[in-house]
Amino acid sequence: MTIQSVNPRTGESFGPKFASTTAQALDEIVAASERACEVWSMMAADERGRILNAVADALDAHAEKLVEIADLETGLGKVRLTGEVGRTTFQIRSFATALIAGDFISPTVDAAVDGAPPQGHPKFLRTVRAIGPVAVFGASNFPFAFSVLGGDTASALAAGCSVVVKAHPAHPQTSQTTVDIAIKAMSDAGAPAGTLAIGHGFEFGKAIITDPRICAGAFTGSKAGGRALFDLAQSRPNPIPFYGELGSVNPVVVTESGLADPATFAGAYLDSLLMGNGQFCTNPGLLFVPENSEFLQALQEQLLLRDAGPFLSEATKVLHDKVRTALEEATGAKKVSGKAVDSLGFFSTPEILITSAGQMMKDPSKLSAECFGPTGIVITYSKVAEVISLLAHLEGALVGCLFAAPTDHSAVALVHALAKMSGRVAFNAWPTGVAVAAGQHHGGPYPASTSTLHTSVGIHAIERFLRPVTFQGFPDELYAAISHDSVKGK
Amino acid sequence: MTIQSVNPRTGESFGPKFASTTAQALDEIVAASERACEVWSMMAADERGRILNAVADALDAHAEKLVEIADLETGLGKVRLTGEVGRTTFQIRSFATALIAGDFISPTVDAAVDGAPPQGHPKFLRTVRAIGPVAVFGASNFPFAFSVLGGDTASALAAGCSVVVKAHPAHPQTSQTTVDIAIKAMSDAGAPAGTLAIGHGFEFGKAIITDPRICAGAFTGSKAGGRALFDLAQSRPNPIPFYGELGSVNPVVVTESGLADPATFAGAYLDSLLMGNGQFCTNPGLLFVPENSEFLQALQEQLLLRDAGPFLSEATKVLHDKVRTALEEATGAKKVSGKAVDSLGFFSTPEILITSAGQMMKDPSKLSAECFGPTGIVITYSKVAEVISLLAHLEGALVGCLFAAPTDHSAVALVHALAKMSGRVAFNAWPTGVAVAAGQHHGGPYPASTSTLHTSVGIHAIERFLRPVTFQGFPDELYAAISHDSVKGK
Repeated sequence: MTIQSVNPRTGESFGPKFASTTAQALDEIVAASERACEVWSMMAADERGRILNAVADALDAHAEKLVEIADLETGLGKVRLTGEVGRTTFQIRSFATALIAGDFISPTVDAAVDGAPPQGHPKFLRTVRAIGPVAVFGASNFPFAFSVLGGDTASALAAGCSVVVKAHPAHPQTSQTTVDIAIKAMSDAGAPAGTLAIGHGFEFGKAIITDPRICAGAFTGSKAGGRALFDLAQSRPNPIPFYGELGSVNPVVVTESGLADPATFAGAYLDSLLMGNGQFCTNPGLLFVPENSEFLQALQEQLLLRDAGPFLSEATKVLHDKVRTALEEATGAKKVSGKAVDSLGFFSTPEILITSAGQMMKDPSKLSAECFGPTGIVITYSKVAEVISLLAHLEGALVGCLFAAPTDHSAVALVHALAKMSGRVAFNAWPTGVAVAAGQHHGGPYPASTSTLHTSVGIHAIERFLRPVTFQGFPDELYAAISHDSVKGK
Repeated sequence: MTIQSVNPRTGESFGPKFASTTAQALDEIVAASERACEVWSMMAADERGRILNAVADALDAHAEKLVEIADLETGLGKVRLTGEVGRTTFQIRSFATALIAGDFISPTVDAAVDGAPPQGHPKFLRTVRAIGPVAVFGASNFPFAFSVLGGDTASALAAGCSVVVKAHPAHPQTSQTTVDIAIKAMSDAGAPAGTLAIGHGFEFGKAIITDPRICAGAFTGSKAGGRALFDLAQSRPNPIPFYGELGSVNPVVVTESGLADPATFAGAYLDSLLMGNGQFCTNPGLLFVPENSEFLQALQEQLLLRDAGPFLSEATKVLHDKVRTALEEATGAKKVSGKAVDSLGFFSTPEILITSAGQMMKDPSKLSAECFGPTGIVITYSKVAEVISLLAHLEGALVGCLFAAPTDHSAVALVHALAKMSGRVAFNAWPTGVAVAAGQHHGGPYPASTSTLHTSVGIHAIERFLRPVTFQGFPDELYAAISHDSVKGK
């Protein structure tokens, strides 16, 4: 089997055909990755930081070429993609900066305490070590920031792990070009050969996550694909951590006090909902609004003016249309639609399904199907208690949002309900637009993440690939001989 | 089915019969646990700390009675068990102290940064919240420190989780008495009813880990039992974190420079190996020694003077004997034995299997069977490279030890090899005796832990039950209204 790029705006195939990576090639890739990890993980952290900065510089230098290829493969547009390259290199440099500062990787000292146990104990140095070679599965909707050199790869490399990427079939050229640029930059800067590698094809994906030498997996994508890989990772003779972001139906709640200007609010909702043709894991899938005819009227009028964007791939469109049809039937909601579409490429008309909290309480499980694309569900409510009740029935989400006046007496209960089922709660802000920041948490209860304790965005993402090792009773000279990293709290 | 205590020194059953917890009772326990968690998790952390201190006080006040019951059920002896109660209450108080100090649970502020992304971002408050109700499976070999109120329960309660314990069938009375004391103390101190609960029986164990309301599991015990529970936890519609300590074959390496006094070293080895009849997850299962006839001679002589202790249960003895017989056959090792046993209870003669590195390299996988009891394997070697090669073939371990002079030129390579496969490396110290300290790491690559990133001992154990939640763009007043905890780095 071969993989070839498809232009989602036209449906036409183009460019080179990528052969599926063979089992023998995989074996060589992983063997090299394991050897590289031995060296890469034991380099001084600031040296790894310097090399990561060189990778970021190389990507920036090739940004124009990368954006051109990615735009043809994904249809996401050059403005968005140029911004995404900037976000990707910012992310890589954030990890580099942390490494150079010694954050996250410096050992901590727990000095010896005289006396018998339980109070007394020997001296401990608590350190972290790279978990080992990591398999990263890129996402289709962020061909840079969550793909070959996205947050998963950047954080794993920063942790001292080698990385084997499984290229996403919806942007094989972007993947291969990115990895080629990065491998050259790493090699020029002194990283061991094999620290970063790539493979193509469905079978490669299944084989890499079950390879006994791979020590962790990271994935961003669909619930079906992610769960299948999670199951493979957990059923190994030696199960490994699998950091999967499997999708999220993100609730947005607006109270009366937050709906002062219904028409403007409707426009802002559509901006967030239809950004990137709705193909964001932080898409505002469910909007809870008080019964308000002015808002619904404005929504309908403004939606008619919105264009459809292309889907990332034919498979994405087919799945979206299937889920949307099922949602229409299951919810019995009223449909309002955007501009009709007339194109040979992969497009669907934007659509909002309007229903009520009372209606959805009959079977709230219907609300947990992620419709990845230009489709939103608006749920009207008469009492805040209805919203809280429905939120308790939802699956885990990456983010929940509340629009309200800060003094709104219903805000506290709504924030609690949102915090219980999501990893981030945003106040008077839309869910899309995930800042790369130390305070960020991009995760949440399953299926938002298969590992609810960890984030895939921001500097804390490095923690996923660092395992603690405690050195007990080590003389300073011996510890210095086995580590490059300076000790904190000495 | 009912569960009754058995005295392992005599093989006789005694005391009350505990009925297996029914499905209906389980449902009520978990419903109450979920309600309690809502309240317990939102209490101010220092209030939870105060209640945990009250629990520790209550256990200490009942120590004599608890030790008496536990000694009859486990045969571990009153001296050891009295020490273990002290360790258990020390552990509970450590978490209480951390909560009162605001460690681990205080939100951190990431102040807003002006400008466009990726540099600019809104204000984030990164907080942690209790993951939800936790199922804890107690271990047989530590009826206090790793059982009903052991580190798993203490850390989960500290995190704000409610806990449902599955009592270990080898010490049902100790389990029930402990939980009764703790529940009364918690209730008197103001904890919500249902914060701590217990159930008995094999079916209860399977049902509790698959209950959709349970949000995490913690386990210390055998590889077979732990893996079965891990598999159940991971195959749920919503998989949950499962912190399992499934057993560990811990390597101890001594170099020529560390073997200055072979006879004393042999005695110290036997002390560590036979402590608690060898029933420790940190037992020194494999000892690598240079070819040294004086050591082997001393070992044989001293072993003959050692008494057998009782096994914790008949099941533990049966499994130990089966694994030992298989090891004897698989390794073709020379056997040396301790004192013969003459008792109706559950005893086996202590035994050391002596083989060579060259012999074991033919099939190193043989060394990965944990023989939980008074059995050790001694592997003689002529070159350090042989040891390093064998260590690379071992499964993950909780702890690896090196005895050597600090200036020994072979130490660095051996430390690297030990750190690669274990969670703790001890220098010139035996693996048994796990200090409860902030610098401790009690975990390791699978099967030492099913979650290699986390420790089950020491204050960091709380991290297993705290999931991050980020609050974005929250005004200070609104955040204050939803949380009791003071904000750090403001």
